Amino acid sequence: MALLEARAELDVIVWPEDRACERSWLMENVVGATGVIVMFPEKVNTELLDKAGPSLKVVSTVSVGYEHIDLKAAAQHNLKVGYTPDVLTDAVADLSVMLALMAGRNGGIGVDLVQKGQWPNFSWSPFALCGPQLSTTAASQTRKIGFLGFGRIAQATLARLVPFGITHCLYSSNPSSPPNYARDAALAKQHNLRAVSKVDIDELARESDVLFVLAPGGSGTYHVVNEAVLKKMKRTSILVNASRGTLVDSDALAKALREGWIWGAGLDVVEGEPNVTIDHPLVKEPRCVILPHIGSATLETRGEMTTRAAQNVIAAILGEEMPSQVDLSTVL
Amino acid sequence: MALLEARAELDVIVWPEDRACERSWLMENVVGATGVIVMFPEKVNTELLDKAGPSLKVVSTVSVGYEHIDLKAAAQHNLKVGYTPDVLTDAVADLSVMLALMAGRNGGIGVDLVQKGQWPNFSWSPFALCGPQLSTTAASQTRKIGFLGFGRIAQATLARLVPFGITHCLYSSNPSSPPNYARDAALAKQHNLRAVSKVDIDELARESDVLFVLAPGGSGTYHVVNEAVLKKMKRTSILVNASRGTLVDSDALAKALREGWIWGAGLDVVEGEPNVTIDHPLVKEPRCVILPHIGSATLETRGEMTTRAAQNVIAAILGEEMPSQVDLSTVL
Repeated sequence: MALLEARAELDVIVWPEDRACERSWLMENVVGATGVIVMFPEKVNTELLDKAGPSLKVVSTVSVGYEHIDLKAAAQHNLKVGYTPDVLTDAVADLSVMLALMAGRNGGIGVDLVQKGQWPNFSWSPFALCGPQLSTTAASQTRKIGFLGFGRIAQATLARLVPFGITHCLYSSNPSSPPNYARDAALAKQHNLRAVSKVDIDELARESDVLFVLAPGGSGTYHVVNEAVLKKMKRTSILVNASRGTLVDSDALAKALREGWIWGAGLDVVEGEPNVTIDHPLVKEPRCVILPHIGSATLETRGEMTTRAAQNVIAAILGEEMPSQVDLSTVL
Repeated sequence: MALLEARAELDVIVWPEDRACERSWLMENVVGATGVIVMFPEKVNTELLDKAGPSLKVVSTVSVGYEHIDLKAAAQHNLKVGYTPDVLTDAVADLSVMLALMAGRNGGIGVDLVQKGQWPNFSWSPFALCGPQLSTTAASQTRKIGFLGFGRIAQATLARLVPFGITHCLYSSNPSSPPNYARDAALAKQHNLRAVSKVDIDELARESDVLFVLAPGGSGTYHVVNEAVLKKMKRTSILVNASRGTLVDSDALAKALREGWIWGAGLDVVEGEPNVTIDHPLVKEPRCVILPHIGSATLETRGEMTTRAAQNVIAAILGEEMPSQVDLSTVL
């Protein structure tokens, strides 16, 4: 807000409540706007862009993903689109590690047990509330960590796992991009791992002790984690999804948990969110830890994301280079 | 069990249920025993040792702590006492990191919101469900991590936090042991930290972004985290206790959370556990994540702990050196 208000030439109209903006308010107030800053819940489509009219130069989203923005429509309207990559890498990597730990260590079940007043009735026994350990031990000296998608967030997550004693990193990524042997060898050396290897998704599923889904959403990755993939995973393995809900088939995952194909799951995203209620098959699974899409939700990161979004909109309006602009050159 | 059953000279009597053993069963079956393996919930006192009688040579606990064993009584009965240090270091360090993340990132609140079917009503806004970020960011480049107690588990926790970008490590430990400047300098160099420093508890409270309580229980550390200490902490700081509940004054911590002296807390232990019910002041605090003492609860670690406990009791009975024996030379 300070950045925007410091620009005397800008007339700033702000949705006054601390919740997602109402569509009717947005449609009314976007008329004649030069730029618009949106959050993840706001759909930016032809309807909105037509309503804004020919004055609109830029749409700036406070997010790294932009599935809520119709890029083709934006290009047709000759707009610039800003987003906030990089600044949320560390917040999402932190949460990915937390989800891996919570899914393995009964984080959800344990908290729930105490919250419901059941601790006095919880009878300690040698293997009660035990799950697979993320770190290596004297008798269990190998940990293979898999990544579906191996961009910035995946690599930041990998770095955080190194002191847990992990030994192998496997990843699958865009099939059309060739393996980068030099980068992988450098990563293995940097982190003192036995291997960093690009593999196909079947091998990724078979070998990973923890499989992190950290790839972009969209039609190209829709339900890439399906029943066939989940059936190949180890019975002691953990699935973490901190990217987009559409990558994982929720019904298949619920079946995998119910029937013990995998040990547990940690999800920050679920297909169809936020319409995920207590009758959702994943909410019913005790070994499924679900968070309401808070991957970037830290005071520091959200501060940096909103700052970047303001910088993007100001730069576009002034005709300067935007700090983080979505490339629209190939969408039409 | 395989280790014990392989010893034909041993007659093994086993509590047959997968829950803590009933006192009356233990008192009845301990009569005439040569060795006894106990878990954390079993109190080993004069009553039990007298009941066992003069045949008893060894008490072996499946735990690193031994507050449940009256060491003086054990020494008076001329017993050996076995425990399981080291093998649970990594499991507890993993959980300590998980608790720090959960307390900062609304881990408990987020899971609870989804479990209660409130995700559809959760209105996204830029700072909703935001908390302090464990990792550093471009605009927030310093993280000071404090340890009350700086033994094996604390140092394993420290190592895990390094890739989160932490910059300083502070610790307080036994006041009678002098600072170990050489060890601290080596640790700082190994982890590329600006400093590893022994400080008094006031400075520890004032400076720590996350304060881990990882010290032994007992009278020497009773309520060492009290109202005065909590009042000195930062409003954005996190308290983690994965050692013993007696180190933290629960009423003072509840007040600190209620009045915002600190941001949040992650506890694996609470004084008076397991008698912690929904009317407990800490259970009522939304920013207090509580787990039912599952620090060592992993399949791998509990396997190694039970193995060590069996090795201890067998060695003591055979008159061999125990792998992990409690030193009783100074307790009388």
